Amino acid sequence: MSRHILLIAHGSRRESSNHEVEILARKLALLASEFDSVKAAFLEMADPDIASGLGALIEQGATEIIVLPYFLAAGRHVVEDVPQEVERIKAAHPDVDIHLSEHLGAVNEVPGLLLKLALSVT
Amino acid sequence: MSRHILLIAHGSRRESSNHEVEILARKLALLASEFDSVKAAFLEMADPDIASGLGALIEQGATEIIVLPYFLAAGRHVVEDVPQEVERIKAAHPDVDIHLSEHLGAVNEVPGLLLKLALSVT
Repeated sequence: MSRHILLIAHGSRRESSNHEVEILARKLALLASEFDSVKAAFLEMADPDIASGLGALIEQGATEIIVLPYFLAAGRHVVEDVPQEVERIKAAHPDVDIHLSEHLGAVNEVPGLLLKLALSVT
Repeated sequence: MSRHILLIAHGSRRESSNHEVEILARKLALLASEFDSVKAAFLEMADPDIASGLGALIEQGATEIIVLPYFLAAGRHVVEDVPQEVERIKAAHPDVDIHLSEHLGAVNEVPGLLLKLALSVT
């Protein structure tokens, strides 16, 4: 059993913004002792893309991969682009358990985090 | 003293995605008893834009406004576009206390939320 998380971000032309996502994947890896690794991949404008990110995990023997969309709103990327790409790879690798989670913005704790952020300013 | 939060999202062509942000602003309003109102505004592709959102709060007598960027990564929008627009309105209304907070992605709790999301899938 080899369990992994693939964090999917939009990707940016700013290298520092993509780097921020990789740092986040590393922070998540430190917390996520239930998983063997946490990697980042990007929908567009940065490498690896979703197919390469999933492909690398599958090649190294992943038996289960949780795909985590690091997006706030259920826009086209969350509703169409990411699921389509994940379904395509799932179809090609029926032996690997690939699950797509909800996007971050759907988590109940978000309003509380925003309040904390607002109160930290004043 | 009249304190308000303006939640700034990117804005989407999908009306349901913008609506999701408005629902979030309402959830935040229920929590944020320290503030008189919480409104949403959009950088692009949806109304109100940042200037209109701030303008409406200023017109109704806001003395303090916390601008909360509902963005995950410090890309161009967070680093340049939102601050420039906020600075422009601040300069025109020196009597109103307008603060720009960090973006949501900068909050320390984000990795923990992502882990919770990953564990909820399996």
